[in-house]
Amino acid sequence: ELCWSVLLREGLFPRGHLHQNHLLPATDGDTKTMTFLQEVVDILLAYIVESFDRETKVIDFHYPNELLQMNNWELQDEPATLDDILISCRATLKYAIKTAHPRYFNQLSTGLDMVGLAADWLTSTANTNMFTYEVAPVFVLLEYVTLKKMREIIGWPDGRGDGIFSPGGAISNMYAMLLARFKMFPEVKEKGMSSVPRLVAFTSEHSHFSIKKGAAALGIGTESSCIILHILVALVQGFVPFFVSATAGTTVYGAFDPLIAISDICKKYNIWMHVDGAWGGSLLMSRRHRWKLDGVERANSVTWNPHKMMSVPLQCSALLVREEGLMQNCNQMHACYLFQQDKHYDLSYDTGDKALQCGRHVDIFKLWLMWRAKGTIGFEAQIDKCLELSEYLYNKIKDREGYEMVFDGKPQHTNVCFWYLPPGIRYMEDKEERKKHLHKVAPVIKARMMEYGTTMVSYQPQGDKVNFFRMVISNPAATFEDIDFLIEEIERLGQDL
Amino acid sequence: ELCWSVLLREGLFPRGHLHQNHLLPATDGDTKTMTFLQEVVDILLAYIVESFDRETKVIDFHYPNELLQMNNWELQDEPATLDDILISCRATLKYAIKTAHPRYFNQLSTGLDMVGLAADWLTSTANTNMFTYEVAPVFVLLEYVTLKKMREIIGWPDGRGDGIFSPGGAISNMYAMLLARFKMFPEVKEKGMSSVPRLVAFTSEHSHFSIKKGAAALGIGTESSCIILHILVALVQGFVPFFVSATAGTTVYGAFDPLIAISDICKKYNIWMHVDGAWGGSLLMSRRHRWKLDGVERANSVTWNPHKMMSVPLQCSALLVREEGLMQNCNQMHACYLFQQDKHYDLSYDTGDKALQCGRHVDIFKLWLMWRAKGTIGFEAQIDKCLELSEYLYNKIKDREGYEMVFDGKPQHTNVCFWYLPPGIRYMEDKEERKKHLHKVAPVIKARMMEYGTTMVSYQPQGDKVNFFRMVISNPAATFEDIDFLIEEIERLGQDL
Repeated sequence: ELCWSVLLREGLFPRGHLHQNHLLPATDGDTKTMTFLQEVVDILLAYIVESFDRETKVIDFHYPNELLQMNNWELQDEPATLDDILISCRATLKYAIKTAHPRYFNQLSTGLDMVGLAADWLTSTANTNMFTYEVAPVFVLLEYVTLKKMREIIGWPDGRGDGIFSPGGAISNMYAMLLARFKMFPEVKEKGMSSVPRLVAFTSEHSHFSIKKGAAALGIGTESSCIILHILVALVQGFVPFFVSATAGTTVYGAFDPLIAISDICKKYNIWMHVDGAWGGSLLMSRRHRWKLDGVERANSVTWNPHKMMSVPLQCSALLVREEGLMQNCNQMHACYLFQQDKHYDLSYDTGDKALQCGRHVDIFKLWLMWRAKGTIGFEAQIDKCLELSEYLYNKIKDREGYEMVFDGKPQHTNVCFWYLPPGIRYMEDKEERKKHLHKVAPVIKARMMEYGTTMVSYQPQGDKVNFFRMVISNPAATFEDIDFLIEEIERLGQDL
Repeated sequence: ELCWSVLLREGLFPRGHLHQNHLLPATDGDTKTMTFLQEVVDILLAYIVESFDRETKVIDFHYPNELLQMNNWELQDEPATLDDILISCRATLKYAIKTAHPRYFNQLSTGLDMVGLAADWLTSTANTNMFTYEVAPVFVLLEYVTLKKMREIIGWPDGRGDGIFSPGGAISNMYAMLLARFKMFPEVKEKGMSSVPRLVAFTSEHSHFSIKKGAAALGIGTESSCIILHILVALVQGFVPFFVSATAGTTVYGAFDPLIAISDICKKYNIWMHVDGAWGGSLLMSRRHRWKLDGVERANSVTWNPHKMMSVPLQCSALLVREEGLMQNCNQMHACYLFQQDKHYDLSYDTGDKALQCGRHVDIFKLWLMWRAKGTIGFEAQIDKCLELSEYLYNKIKDREGYEMVFDGKPQHTNVCFWYLPPGIRYMEDKEERKKHLHKVAPVIKARMMEYGTTMVSYQPQGDKVNFFRMVISNPAATFEDIDFLIEEIERLGQDL
């Protein structure tokens, strides 16, 4: 039997004529399929190696209208050839952002782990759903094993409790709020919010916006999600406080709320304590830094996103819950076409009915395989290194000419927030004028970074503070030299402003 | 420079000593990385080819406690070698269910598309988030192009409107309910449910359980989600009907609600009309079958899951919304660290603030690339073929000895629901006794299917109907012979019962 590549080489099978319907499940589609997938993999492998090369651009940036013109992205009635498909893959990667690049610092999720990537490729190939053991036996077991391990690390006795991997921290936080409400007022499931008193949720000023999104969605209302000091005021006004979300690692400053003090308040008023550790939860893996989460073991629920500080490919977010069985009671609807009660195996492994989702993507394998490959100590070393890099950055700029720090003291996480003041505004006397100028500096430097494609870092205003850079380091590829480069690049791109 | 594989071959680099920290971003990690990823890909390619082979088992089934013993799945402090990682990959696939297998019929999502798989591998490699154009320029544009195309197919003028890809149909349906409530009572976002009258949502009896899950989560309560006939009763009782979810393709029977009639009612009472076409929406791609959704263009929102009938790898679910801007107003929280208003590009491409999620997985590329590869006509042919197969099955068993159909008439979708009666109970006179026996038949046959690994099909009871098989066909690899095989297999495994 001649293989496809031989036919191609000899011109017997003009490759421009090959279409997806020559691939599996087509009869004799094996070789063509393997050749096609191998060609895609070759493109991906080249992209990966390129992404780690500092000589490569982080991004080949184009404005939306330009990018729309640079390729034919429209969908057609007629099929394209496999050649065209490969061209589309190359074009997509050409204009993609290289999130693996050692100088990509733009988000809390950066970097690309090779074992995690391999695991994600396997997950795609397995192409199944998490709702029952029947269709995902191994993945369901691995979720069970991993959630238990994470609960042990939180510090719950014998790792007991519950949990789920959900599509991101916002959904994990929403689950927590849902559970808190159900725990206090189980009748809300059937009867809705009209059966319960006016509820109020508490969170810290710099908490993630998903707490407010959750409050809006759940019918609590954003006005009823206050900052934490007003708890007594709320009680006096007749509200029922049911949920406190403490943040372990705020998005902008990387600050950790005092969990022990908060847990005392929650205990006193009998309020569900949630810890949003989407960003900071991973510090639990570090013997050097886990004290920042002291008291987390007193929480009723914890959000922890391994896709951030642990560099697991997107998405991988866990909600851990201390009480067993509550998620099931809160969310189950007993769909008999999924969760048949007369199956021939232990039904406790059919975890789907505790989710809000029906189908649920397999997010566990990449975390599990990476954990396997690194060991707990490997994750610890990776996390410690990122914190070391941020301390290096902080020490480097805190007294450097042209820099001002946004908040006092050493950052608790890898967030280093600072203003860069170009020489022209450094000694401006009119404070308001200076502020107005300074507000425009970070956006212009950022736009230039993207134009040149050399690095990417985030900026934002906050309260009355004008635009500042928020540097975060979660990228395991970054080194001290990359931090030096970032500072030089900011100065190079910003000195004329 | 010697490459890794040469060193390995010559025994200069004992491969048992290689760990993940020899891979990128390690210095000189290129070759080792490419070799490692290629070894993983070789495992995956072999698995793919095997999955399509009818001689292979659909599943090598083991009970949870057995499976826990069959490999060391525990997480350790110390790292494993890359060899061990490859072993873990092989073990995971050995016990996985082969969802690509031509005889896997267990769920609404079956099959494995080769272009879709390639696209998912690329997506993993690109490892980014959908929230801003800045970090996902191409993917954001492709989502824009594809959602517009889907709205054109629904029949909204010029494809105008809005939409989002969400993690599954349950979340898409929840979005719709959230939008409906916000449209009628925008104050609910800030003030919560206590600011609005008692709401009631309507849905058909056989609708998906996610409608009830959504009602519970949103604080409406499951008791306030009624079947559709009671609308006047609700009005009289002082409830405010705000949401009707019509189903296009129910989960068990594959039935289509009469959308035109429902839209008339919604218009009369000024109620948001949602169409849950998670399963049936794909029939819009078929000129032969799209009449079943006549009236869908009158809906305010439509759920449509390309990961079901269109065989896009999991997950890929779209919510399409007729009104522009509503999603943004309903869900936005203006997080200034993501959606800076002074960016240098057109901010309308920063779509993240219309989502409930913060980070959002890239689910678009697999759909877009498959659409490219098949063309609209390719999807149409694939869908038509699945419906043809189910008609073949229906015709084959409707008068066959030992079979009874669960509902009268030709199925509207690919769902064929039937009882198989083993000879021993076929002529049982005691109806109750017969029913009791029959209830146990499907579970035993299903358990035996899994034990032998020859095929998999779902079963369930429904109302007063005892366990019956629900055959669904969404697997593009299935042929007429596989349908014949299924029937033979049911009879082989069930005749002694």
